[in-house]
Amino acid sequence: MSFSFGNKIKITMFGQSHSEKMGVIIDGLPSGFKVDEEKLAAFMARRAPGNDEFSTPRKEADKVIFASGLVDGKTCGAPVCAIIENTNTRSKDYENLRDVPRPGHADFAAWAKFGDERDVSGGGQFSGRLTALFCVVGGILMQLYEEKGIYIGAHIASVGEIKDDAFDGVNVTKDDFVGDKAFPVINENKGELMKEHIRKARADGDSVGGVVECAVVGIKSGLGDTLFGGIEGRISSAIFAIPAVKGIEFGRGFESALLYGSENNDAFIVKGGQIVTKTNNHGGILGGISSGMPIIFRAAFKPTPSISKPQQSVSLSRKEETILEIKGRHDPCIVKRATVCIEAAAAIAIADLIL
Amino acid sequence: MSFSFGNKIKITMFGQSHSEKMGVIIDGLPSGFKVDEEKLAAFMARRAPGNDEFSTPRKEADKVIFASGLVDGKTCGAPVCAIIENTNTRSKDYENLRDVPRPGHADFAAWAKFGDERDVSGGGQFSGRLTALFCVVGGILMQLYEEKGIYIGAHIASVGEIKDDAFDGVNVTKDDFVGDKAFPVINENKGELMKEHIRKARADGDSVGGVVECAVVGIKSGLGDTLFGGIEGRISSAIFAIPAVKGIEFGRGFESALLYGSENNDAFIVKGGQIVTKTNNHGGILGGISSGMPIIFRAAFKPTPSISKPQQSVSLSRKEETILEIKGRHDPCIVKRATVCIEAAAAIAIADLIL
Amino acid sequence: MSFSFGNKIKITMFGQSHSEKMGVIIDGLPSGFKVDEEKLAAFMARRAPGNDEFSTPRKEADKVIFASGLVDGKTCGAPVCAIIENTNTRSKDYENLRDVPRPGHADFAAWAKFGDERDVSGGGQFSGRLTALFCVVGGILMQLYEEKGIYIGAHIASVGEIKDDAFDGVNVTKDDFVGDKAFPVINENKGELMKEHIRKARADGDSVGGVVECAVVGIKSGLGDTLFGGIEGRISSAIFAIPAVKGIEFGRGFESALLYGSENNDAFIVKGGQIVTKTNNHGGILGGISSGMPIIFRAAFKPTPSISKPQQSVSLSRKEETILEIKGRHDPCIVKRATVCIEAAAAIAIADLIL
Amino acid sequence: MSFSFGNKIKITMFGQSHSEKMGVIIDGLPSGFKVDEEKLAAFMARRAPGNDEFSTPRKEADKVIFASGLVDGKTCGAPVCAIIENTNTRSKDYENLRDVPRPGHADFAAWAKFGDERDVSGGGQFSGRLTALFCVVGGILMQLYEEKGIYIGAHIASVGEIKDDAFDGVNVTKDDFVGDKAFPVINENKGELMKEHIRKARADGDSVGGVVECAVVGIKSGLGDTLFGGIEGRISSAIFAIPAVKGIEFGRGFESALLYGSENNDAFIVKGGQIVTKTNNHGGILGGISSGMPIIFRAAFKPTPSISKPQQSVSLSRKEETILEIKGRHDPCIVKRATVCIEAAAAIAIADLIL
Repeated sequence: MSFSFGNKIKITMFGQSHSEKMGVIIDGLPSGFKVDEEKLAAFMARRAPGNDEFSTPRKEADKVIFASGLVDGKTCGAPVCAIIENTNTRSKDYENLRDVPRPGHADFAAWAKFGDERDVSGGGQFSGRLTALFCVVGGILMQLYEEKGIYIGAHIASVGEIKDDAFDGVNVTKDDFVGDKAFPVINENKGELMKEHIRKARADGDSVGGVVECAVVGIKSGLGDTLFGGIEGRISSAIFAIPAVKGIEFGRGFESALLYGSENNDAFIVKGGQIVTKTNNHGGILGGISSGMPIIFRAAFKPTPSISKPQQSVSLSRKEETILEIKGRHDPCIVKRATVCIEAAAAIAIADLIL
Repeated sequence: MSFSFGNKIKITMFGQSHSEKMGVIIDGLPSGFKVDEEKLAAFMARRAPGNDEFSTPRKEADKVIFASGLVDGKTCGAPVCAIIENTNTRSKDYENLRDVPRPGHADFAAWAKFGDERDVSGGGQFSGRLTALFCVVGGILMQLYEEKGIYIGAHIASVGEIKDDAFDGVNVTKDDFVGDKAFPVINENKGELMKEHIRKARADGDSVGGVVECAVVGIKSGLGDTLFGGIEGRISSAIFAIPAVKGIEFGRGFESALLYGSENNDAFIVKGGQIVTKTNNHGGILGGISSGMPIIFRAAFKPTPSISKPQQSVSLSRKEETILEIKGRHDPCIVKRATVCIEAAAAIAIADLIL
Repeated sequence: MSFSFGNKIKITMFGQSHSEKMGVIIDGLPSGFKVDEEKLAAFMARRAPGNDEFSTPRKEADKVIFASGLVDGKTCGAPVCAIIENTNTRSKDYENLRDVPRPGHADFAAWAKFGDERDVSGGGQFSGRLTALFCVVGGILMQLYEEKGIYIGAHIASVGEIKDDAFDGVNVTKDDFVGDKAFPVINENKGELMKEHIRKARADGDSVGGVVECAVVGIKSGLGDTLFGGIEGRISSAIFAIPAVKGIEFGRGFESALLYGSENNDAFIVKGGQIVTKTNNHGGILGGISSGMPIIFRAAFKPTPSISKPQQSVSLSRKEETILEIKGRHDPCIVKRATVCIEAAAAIAIADLIL
Repeated sequence: MSFSFGNKIKITMFGQSHSEKMGVIIDGLPSGFKVDEEKLAAFMARRAPGNDEFSTPRKEADKVIFASGLVDGKTCGAPVCAIIENTNTRSKDYENLRDVPRPGHADFAAWAKFGDERDVSGGGQFSGRLTALFCVVGGILMQLYEEKGIYIGAHIASVGEIKDDAFDGVNVTKDDFVGDKAFPVINENKGELMKEHIRKARADGDSVGGVVECAVVGIKSGLGDTLFGGIEGRISSAIFAIPAVKGIEFGRGFESALLYGSENNDAFIVKGGQIVTKTNNHGGILGGISSGMPIIFRAAFKPTPSISKPQQSVSLSRKEETILEIKGRHDPCIVKRATVCIEAAAAIAIADLIL
């Protein structure tokens, strides 16, 4: 089912953009683990809009209530249910979108699937708002991973044509992670150029896309499975659950298709008594299994479909073309906020292998 | 589990490169469907090596035996089990690879996971040989899809830097498919250049990578699910099960990350009484759900890791560096054969939505 | 996972006896269905203790809050999450049970599994309190089933040695159901004897066991699957999730083991143009598949393990034998309240087949 | 899906009574385990008919071929596929049953589900023949369990009204198991009476039912899960997959419904430094979790529906009543052969908890 993921660690979500509550059940966590709620709140704050100039007008408190599974803050073996109240009341703001689907949004597909009964408010179950639940789960999992020396970090790899520096696939460690920065890039000069590009798009009532790069470090070799259980497949399943992702690549990815085998194959060497690869074009995954090198992947985000510019659309009821104009201020680039969602989704994707 | 896929239509595979048999169980097919075994054989022949200059020396007969589930050639409601005998005897050829992992292959990861008990022969469970099973399942499913007007076709989008023409995302139909060609490209001039590039790599004892583009046409709108049930996630799970895939993108994919929202959003229009999009940057998927437009995706294949050039590797037992030289003729580019595997994997990926 | 059930209709529960909230996510319900909340409350009230002489002192309001999945009271296609607040505060009452497991309860097994981190309060995740969630789900499903002419009803088949009349396996209809009675038996004279037996046990600080019989009527033939997908297996999986169930039998059940084939086989006849069986020893299930006859099963409940009589137990920490005496008033017979839980569990068990 | 079971250890079956082959894939076994094929053959021989007076005329060689997953007889980490050739050719013998369903058999239900496309030959996918696959899996698993000191044994608890002695629920060990006997009972005098009863039924062209009791010894405490993951539910799911089972009970089972709590609760005591229960009315399971005491359950088998006596049935095509007379010799009591199937199913049921 589409709101569930995982097997050994099974997560099941619920909620829509404007439902009374949204939440997630996490089943299978080890018992006796103390959740650091402050740290979790800090992790989730990285996703929250409204804290800088690149924001939607919506305020999201995103306070997490643990409805079950914790006793005195520690996991007790029962499923953990974490709930977030949706403080936004169901408004009439979206009623005008009931009949005219926003280009690039799920509106039309939702109508095709669920008909008039769909929840149109705020995008319903298709809202990016649900990524807050990814962050709850990912934030908890990453606390557990830290105890095993495993860390996950993502940065903005590009906005439009402007590229950040890349992680060093061989040597990247948690000290290279930039999640604490307000604008999470490695090269801050590039970050300034990106911001400029975003500001310009916003001024035009437009939006821009980008790429997020993510590294998982500290993972031992031999995890994952063949065929449908490969790490690439697991991670991509979780990453494509994030709205607006349209591509994913591991290691050298699409670029490796341009190379010769002799260029792309990573030589095995002995370093500090360990067998490692000299380069990391394979992105830490061989045959679907971890090689012990950092897992590196990149996800492409399309530009936020919500723009203020008038757009060509249709009336669903009348099957007539019409011009759609959406009022209000929109997030002109989700890639900044997406970095934390990507980290969380990666954490979810590998939970069955780590815990 | 890694050898299983799907829910409503559940497939479960078994086999290694040199196991006595390999096969696949398909559970959930509608009863009363007559499998066209000749058509299936023709589909599978597209994958078989040994039929042209770009081949491995291995001969694979790949005759499919239906062990269960068919009565007089028609599905009877019991699971269909299709079996392929592995005529290659388990040889000693691979014994020299037991201690020295081939760069770019799964050898090292398999050793890390299963230790000395792993099946080293022919790559064991990590062998590309298992994609024959994808073709058995995909070939059957595509026969069922045809009855619903759904067709799947893939072509070689690029080999190294040489690009084929792309499918027209808006207008592509089954008549544009090139699976019948010995070298499945749209633009045959580009095909000749690709072949030249591959020949050169082979002459150098090297290999090359490439990209496969795939279209699914005839799918109605409203299929798929939110979050983890989105079509992108479903397809990528199946595609990454194919060895050597390192990236996937849908619609405009990574390119959409370079665009403005106003460029990337696909306008809705009314055409022939139907609501469609004017362009297809979204690749037929919005919010994880089909829009009714052709589903378009591309998968990046790394160069075949098997090359004849000497390579840097290690002895697993002695933890010492060593030079590996692999004798024999290898497939210098798997992308040609991969087109049929991609079609099959796409068919598997969407089975739960179609049947 | 143990808190999840089903495939097409997937339910996932959370909560412990004294967790802040408990709840259930139901994914896969058809969209556009109006939940009758009053009817649901009435259904759940049948389970609630505290409304007659055979009650625990605990008051359970069990008001259901729909946190997601409903828009204007109708399903919108997103998962429905129903939440019940646990008004009982986590008390110190159970602290004395932390070290001394109650005989017949899950206390010892919970300690063996989760150690000191287990939630000891009120039985934690092992509490019968969680059956309220079964009733939420079952109550909603049964409203959907009614639209298809399918009804589920259970009665107390026996308390100790006292037996109620049995359902007529061939002719039972929803009009024979007794769920509306305060003490749900067919033969009220027998009901009086049962009550007398229960009162006596309570006076002795003891408890009694019993059997619940359940019928599912209106189900068409041909539902269910072979082997592990048979209806008996589906129903028993759900029924054994109810605390204190120690046996289940279908149709003639254990009694059929005493018979000859010629006695037990149900003859096929034609009645009103339909093929039916003359008797219903098979309980509506042949080869795991529905025959179209009423599905009949019985579940055996052991006596409530909570009794006031002093009992032999041990100190877990000291590994010493000790006498346990539990104060307070306990439910001397859960079979009355269990009838509604059995109906709900049966509804859950067959959801994948009906919806 | 109905041909699959388990999660961590996942088994998937295929085959019909008269399909060319039948088999089973076992995924998730630890690598490096040497399967003792002779021991497996001996285990399977206990199920095979044709080796004594109580037999069907069908000869079943049931030679197991390992198609994949073993290298030099040891598991290599890839799924193990075990195949049995069906030497019985698809005969016309069953054609007369195509239109007239046998009372008590799955014939009618299969027709209702699959219509005319069903495999009617030998009962198709509903045939007891598929229990050979249970024995393949169970036989392998039980070899793995022995390494952990876990043993499973079943005996004929009753045939008709004649009862064997019961296992001593507290003290039973593998030395009490009787699987090696040609007629697996504890009390051989009772065994003689049972045989006499079966012979008489056969002479009358009739059949008899019975009960099988099974014990799992050596299991540690704390295994299993709450709610839908309880051991009772797991075992019953597997046991009801065996044709002709109509009831199951754990520990004291239905009898416990007759008792007072003070009688049924098992006192905790300290014995040899371990916490155990003084009696074992709970059958080794509390709250769905193992208590460390032997797991004891009983399954009720209805009389074999195949009898030679003329029976009332119908023509499916003409919807007319007709008398059915089945020629040939039938197994008058399956309980003897069922003991090994019950052991195997129990082994399958608990695999996710043990391995």
